[in-house]
Amino acid sequence: MAKKNRDERSPSLQKRLRLPVGEPVDLSRHSSGATPGGPGAKTAGKAATVRVGEALASLQERLWAASTAGDRRRVLLVLQGMDTSGKGGTVKHVIGLLNPSGCRITAFKAPTAEERAHSFLWRVEKALPLPGEHYEDVLIARVRELAPRVVIDSRYERINAFERSLADDGVTLIKCFLHISYDEQRRRLLRRLDKPEKRWKFAASDIDDRALWPAYRKAYEMALERCGTPYAPWYLVPADHKWYRNWAVSTLLLEHLRELDPRYPEVDFDVAECRERLLRQP
Amino acid sequence: MAKKNRDERSPSLQKRLRLPVGEPVDLSRHSSGATPGGPGAKTAGKAATVRVGEALASLQERLWAASTAGDRRRVLLVLQGMDTSGKGGTVKHVIGLLNPSGCRITAFKAPTAEERAHSFLWRVEKALPLPGEHYEDVLIARVRELAPRVVIDSRYERINAFERSLADDGVTLIKCFLHISYDEQRRRLLRRLDKPEKRWKFAASDIDDRALWPAYRKAYEMALERCGTPYAPWYLVPADHKWYRNWAVSTLLLEHLRELDPRYPEVDFDVAECRERLLRQP
Repeated sequence: MAKKNRDERSPSLQKRLRLPVGEPVDLSRHSSGATPGGPGAKTAGKAATVRVGEALASLQERLWAASTAGDRRRVLLVLQGMDTSGKGGTVKHVIGLLNPSGCRITAFKAPTAEERAHSFLWRVEKALPLPGEHYEDVLIARVRELAPRVVIDSRYERINAFERSLADDGVTLIKCFLHISYDEQRRRLLRRLDKPEKRWKFAASDIDDRALWPAYRKAYEMALERCGTPYAPWYLVPADHKWYRNWAVSTLLLEHLRELDPRYPEVDFDVAECRERLLRQP
Repeated sequence: MAKKNRDERSPSLQKRLRLPVGEPVDLSRHSSGATPGGPGAKTAGKAATVRVGEALASLQERLWAASTAGDRRRVLLVLQGMDTSGKGGTVKHVIGLLNPSGCRITAFKAPTAEERAHSFLWRVEKALPLPGEHYEDVLIARVRELAPRVVIDSRYERINAFERSLADDGVTLIKCFLHISYDEQRRRLLRRLDKPEKRWKFAASDIDDRALWPAYRKAYEMALERCGTPYAPWYLVPADHKWYRNWAVSTLLLEHLRELDPRYPEVDFDVAECRERLLRQP
């Protein structure tokens, strides 16, 4: 119980990291190296994340158990952020804390020919109810001018309507923007180059993309501003420190699952009688 | 390297657990409590599984890296076994050792109306390339006489043709039969009844199913016999000991991944030049 109280520190991490709905977002005013509400340092952070993971696994099992009795509530974790911000690492370290049977993961890359032939949300609907992302079409599409500006502008409202319909259908959306700095991205790209077993993750185009950093930042700011809603707000997760990022995303998951408070279903059989029958069998 | 040699003990676990292709299977002649080739006891077994997990995670990353360069090879783990034999537990403990981004999991329950309207393999094809199972239709369907015998008899060959096409397409099939005893199943069902947080997994029909144990065993023996092929043999995993089951399935995965020997793709850029360019950026 002491542990529970510590995890439930007040103010909750949700309140600390949630971007105010309807207000302009200026990413340069948010530190990417901060660790708000978190354990002070790396070792303590990793240990805290393991503890959060145990609580998460138990709540996940309850949510799953409840779903077998008709509970339609689900959780959708959306991770968004610049290249190297740690979307893959978060899946590995945070979703890795959960029972894989209860998780589906989709990473959206550049759309395929089939995907391009459909509405931009088609591939997302097809993948749901899966953790994933549906923002590429207002981010890279905006920066690279892959569609007319008026088309892109219409997409924010469509994303909001889509997320609204998910929320109405019992989906808890947890949208995390993993915030890293320009310098931290350079360090991570250099590390990919320096480690032979990481080189496959590198592409020369990553360097070209960095030249567009200000345009990307603007596109992210716009997505955070226009698609932050009361039913699906954004959380800004400072992500220069990987241990903090993992702790924060897992703690956000934990807080939301605790609010859902899933319950084991009532059993519809007589326990004592079933026990008897089992013992009577040859 | 010393560790590697120990994991690669000879004879390999594949050879020890593989059921001979084309021979009749008599499950009563296989001990479900044995631990062939395994660490001697629970504590050592759990520690060994953690070590296997580290090797697995690294090979999985290589397989994934190779796939980004066009390597189409994939691994399909099929888990089959009586109720409580530990299919879910194996996913949790063995697949939980891997990066969740590289895994897809499907558990096939009683077919839905939509699924029944299609060929019995339709839902499996739809879910692929996913670990899963496609044997319910020759197991429970046989025992419960859900289809005429002649229809069920035709399914073994169709399963073999299906698995053959997967193998030809670069899929390594690892089919594990989790073998538990009648008494061990009783113990596990009683445990589900006794622990309130496990009760939701229990159904009174589980007791009725036990009365059909001999018929189920016969149906399993037939599936193991008729669907064991050179390109997709069955492994019989004694599963009364959960620690052995987890060790064995993870070790079978490891052996197969080592045989695949996936390689990081060659990089198509000049590392030194990219380094320079990154450092020159403002």
